[in-house]
Amino acid sequence: MLASSTLRLLNIRPTPISSNQNPSEPDTKPVPQAWKLKGSARLNRWSRARTIRSGRKLDRPDQQVQVLEAKRPPVEATESEVNSVTKIDGDDDVGVRVGKSIYMISDGTGWTAEHSVNAALGQFEHCLVDRGCPVNTHLFSGIDDVDRLMEIVKQAAKEGAMVVYTLADPSLGESAKQACKLWGIPSTDILGPITEAIAAHLGVLPSGLPRGAPGRTIPLSEEYFRRIEAIEFTIKQDDGALPQNLYKADIVLTGVSRTGKTPLSIYLAQKGYKVANVPIVMGIELPKTLFEVDPEKVFGLTINPVILQTIRKSRAKSLGFNIETRSNYSEMDYVREELEFARRNFAQNPVWPVIEVTGKAIEETAAVILRLYHDRKHRCSMPRISKRY
Amino acid sequence: MLASSTLRLLNIRPTPISSNQNPSEPDTKPVPQAWKLKGSARLNRWSRARTIRSGRKLDRPDQQVQVLEAKRPPVEATESEVNSVTKIDGDDDVGVRVGKSIYMISDGTGWTAEHSVNAALGQFEHCLVDRGCPVNTHLFSGIDDVDRLMEIVKQAAKEGAMVVYTLADPSLGESAKQACKLWGIPSTDILGPITEAIAAHLGVLPSGLPRGAPGRTIPLSEEYFRRIEAIEFTIKQDDGALPQNLYKADIVLTGVSRTGKTPLSIYLAQKGYKVANVPIVMGIELPKTLFEVDPEKVFGLTINPVILQTIRKSRAKSLGFNIETRSNYSEMDYVREELEFARRNFAQNPVWPVIEVTGKAIEETAAVILRLYHDRKHRCSMPRISKRY
Repeated sequence: MLASSTLRLLNIRPTPISSNQNPSEPDTKPVPQAWKLKGSARLNRWSRARTIRSGRKLDRPDQQVQVLEAKRPPVEATESEVNSVTKIDGDDDVGVRVGKSIYMISDGTGWTAEHSVNAALGQFEHCLVDRGCPVNTHLFSGIDDVDRLMEIVKQAAKEGAMVVYTLADPSLGESAKQACKLWGIPSTDILGPITEAIAAHLGVLPSGLPRGAPGRTIPLSEEYFRRIEAIEFTIKQDDGALPQNLYKADIVLTGVSRTGKTPLSIYLAQKGYKVANVPIVMGIELPKTLFEVDPEKVFGLTINPVILQTIRKSRAKSLGFNIETRSNYSEMDYVREELEFARRNFAQNPVWPVIEVTGKAIEETAAVILRLYHDRKHRCSMPRISKRY
Repeated sequence: MLASSTLRLLNIRPTPISSNQNPSEPDTKPVPQAWKLKGSARLNRWSRARTIRSGRKLDRPDQQVQVLEAKRPPVEATESEVNSVTKIDGDDDVGVRVGKSIYMISDGTGWTAEHSVNAALGQFEHCLVDRGCPVNTHLFSGIDDVDRLMEIVKQAAKEGAMVVYTLADPSLGESAKQACKLWGIPSTDILGPITEAIAAHLGVLPSGLPRGAPGRTIPLSEEYFRRIEAIEFTIKQDDGALPQNLYKADIVLTGVSRTGKTPLSIYLAQKGYKVANVPIVMGIELPKTLFEVDPEKVFGLTINPVILQTIRKSRAKSLGFNIETRSNYSEMDYVREELEFARRNFAQNPVWPVIEVTGKAIEETAAVILRLYHDRKHRCSMPRISKRY
């Protein structure tokens, strides 16, 4: 197991630097094996994960970021090297800086590739955050002909990028795979393996049609309308509006300002839940309906006061609050008192779960809430979120 | 290529029906090869995709849904057979119906597994929609110890489910893989391959830490605040509110009622764009600011009148409109006239792209808009959406 896993990692070749600019005559010379792992990747990962879990502090970058030893073959400076200094065309970053590139190619929307790459990059936060190894992702969506596909793969080769793809059309998928292989570009098929596994499980062949292809128009299903209704409901109920409608909500969130109620509500609404959120403000009475609705659908949010103060200060700055007149909003004493006021309300309603949101991304808090919500609703022996397609 | 792909498909074994209830003594008997494909899977898929693309109508289910020939070995009726009649605990479906199950196991939020499975199931719409082969998905998130993992895998074996997993902790991933192999459950590692490919590309080992693990608290980055701000801005600007703020928006959407402006705005806001939407209502003048802002950020939405009428009728019903007093809202003449009114507005502003939303899911329209938006903003030779991590 360990050996095969290590081999798999070692097997991914470095991006070759090809000076061949003609895509119809790809450079087929064998590329020498250049990356070498220090020891076994899987073993290193295991020991590293264990160390981090144990809470032991790791020095950066010597121990925490175990950099693979790169032994690139000597090559002449070519256009590709110039290109490897990627020009970023993001909004906030128009400068020219070195960075590794990931090309994402899709014949549909590309959101699955983006979501998966984003999740996988979460495993490298320890270096991304420190900018030890900045990564630039480039999403090419709606690529439904082989010519454009080849242009992009060629550009990836020039830039020394890796390629990930979600190509529903099997002939495009095959072309991408072959082209990447010929040009020595590391590539990953994101949807292929799961689609094939589902095909075998269902005993049905996939359509091979990307999103938006003729013949794949979405039906106006009940589910479709339900999700839109949930979003519209949630927007109308934002920030304590229309407390008389709380009984219509699937989920009610309550907490002090800047505990993430609004983005959390919207995230849950996108998943089809009608959400209402009720702010807790010291000295302002909570709406009576909050205590009249089913307490099993109410969730309290709490947060560490120091983090809350930081967020509020940033918020006050971005809103251009006059610090003199609204200073209490982000003043530590006020922050603590308001959290204490919230805590007392939560204590009086022991059925409400209280979720600690400190350091949690919106999607994490959403996962916690939905786990509890479905568990309470279905009283399943194994808590789960079930759906029918 | 064809042969290896076919083999891969054939290689996925059917779920064995195990009567062994003790997870510590898994049933290790070899499972006979049972599913047989009619011909080559890849070839069939290709020809099928080509036929659908060509617009040729396919009869259902004989031709369109090519069902794999199932030759299950004779087995005694066991608990697993009873369990294969899955009890659904979804909101709208509390009955007991036969359906194939997919178990999704994650030590994080599980959203990546859900997103990927959802996208892959899009390739089987031709049978799901018709309920020829209903699929039940079950998401188990936050599974961070091996005991719970084994319980779930065992249950999957009993139900005849397939397993997909996103386990950041490599030892859990290995356990899932081994357990599924021993119990003959088809399983797919969703994040492993892309994470390993990125690791090799960056020359950095992954942390092995799932979302929410100690040591993986999210930083309060600018990006984080920017996304929250975008969501809050978008909510405040919904449905033509505060037209004086249109200049602050990244994207302005305009179109008649029920072209999906609100859910589309929210979808884009989640991706970090500040969106304002302006409804077009016949006889009501559009806000002056709409014509004063940069026309390159304004997008018109249009839709087929018949589909629009269907959506409006459903909307009117769900809102409980009195059909007598508000009948014009979904009356065909009115619908056509209002779309014509919108068209005239669009024609007077030729820089605004007009997006046809008929039959498009929100995320598809979002992909089209963002492609145009980034293309116009960056004037790139190869239109793309770039991000820096």
